[in-house]
Amino acid sequence: MPSKQPITLGIDPGTAILGYGVIAGSQQPELVDVGVLETSNDLPMPERLLRLHAGLQELFGHFRPDALAIEQLFFARNVTTAIAVGQARGVALLAAAQAGVPVSEYSPSEVKHAVVGYGKADKQQIQEMVRLLLNLRAAPQPDDAADALAVALCHVQTIPFASRVAGGGD
Amino acid sequence: MPSKQPITLGIDPGTAILGYGVIAGSQQPELVDVGVLETSNDLPMPERLLRLHAGLQELFGHFRPDALAIEQLFFARNVTTAIAVGQARGVALLAAAQAGVPVSEYSPSEVKHAVVGYGKADKQQIQEMVRLLLNLRAAPQPDDAADALAVALCHVQTIPFASRVAGGGD
Repeated sequence: MPSKQPITLGIDPGTAILGYGVIAGSQQPELVDVGVLETSNDLPMPERLLRLHAGLQELFGHFRPDALAIEQLFFARNVTTAIAVGQARGVALLAAAQAGVPVSEYSPSEVKHAVVGYGKADKQQIQEMVRLLLNLRAAPQPDDAADALAVALCHVQTIPFASRVAGGGD
Repeated sequence: MPSKQPITLGIDPGTAILGYGVIAGSQQPELVDVGVLETSNDLPMPERLLRLHAGLQELFGHFRPDALAIEQLFFARNVTTAIAVGQARGVALLAAAQAGVPVSEYSPSEVKHAVVGYGKADKQQIQEMVRLLLNLRAAPQPDDAADALAVALCHVQTIPFASRVAGGGD
């Protein structure tokens, strides 16, 4: 057993709501923290990104995660949404690089497969499995927070497998 | 006449190539600097954004611009491109906010209209007008650098007009 449980930070990026979830361990992961960073759309975009970046720096500083897990994005409702999500995502990836934290990206279907065992699971199935895997009384709210935990769970389920494969000879 | 010519930084964001242009003055703007920040696609995205951010911080620190001018994006070749551009754009807007520099956004047709006088001008017309307006021997290369100067020129042509309108009673 490692002396320290690895800490994984999962993020579901967005400008208005950025969901985050922090879990410890990989075999039996435990919830450390979950929540959202919110910015008002009354503020100019640079100011919103400044606040998100500061909030992310706080998360990296406070939880000192060993990894950042984030969803790859291949689609969005439209290009305007994609640019807005991209902006928040860019600031999150920057904060990770500045904190020296490696980033792992997973496709939406990898996340669903890892958490629910089914690549086309719906939002509600994901929330319920996140609740069960982390022994929570209620599914985390809002969706953005649950999705952040889901990608963190995907990471810890994927990494040990990759390690086993890499060290498979023994 | 103001004692100091206002400095405008224009940016054409991208992850592989981020074009920038710096101009001084508004009535008869002069070229201060133009160039591109480039990152290799061999590097992981967080590292590329870290380098872009560091490069932008250097530009803000060195030229101390009074304004950042940047194009609004409403479309892109596809959503994947939009997310990539959004990531670079988010890092640029963050760097501006961190440097305390106000950001002005202009639509592509506003830029074309301001620089060429025609909202549907093509790339070559823009490059040629940028060359003429700044008294350059040759049009700046690559496109990204010329586009960055075009949005900076749009800014200085728009701002004095807005000032005249605001102070129009006198």
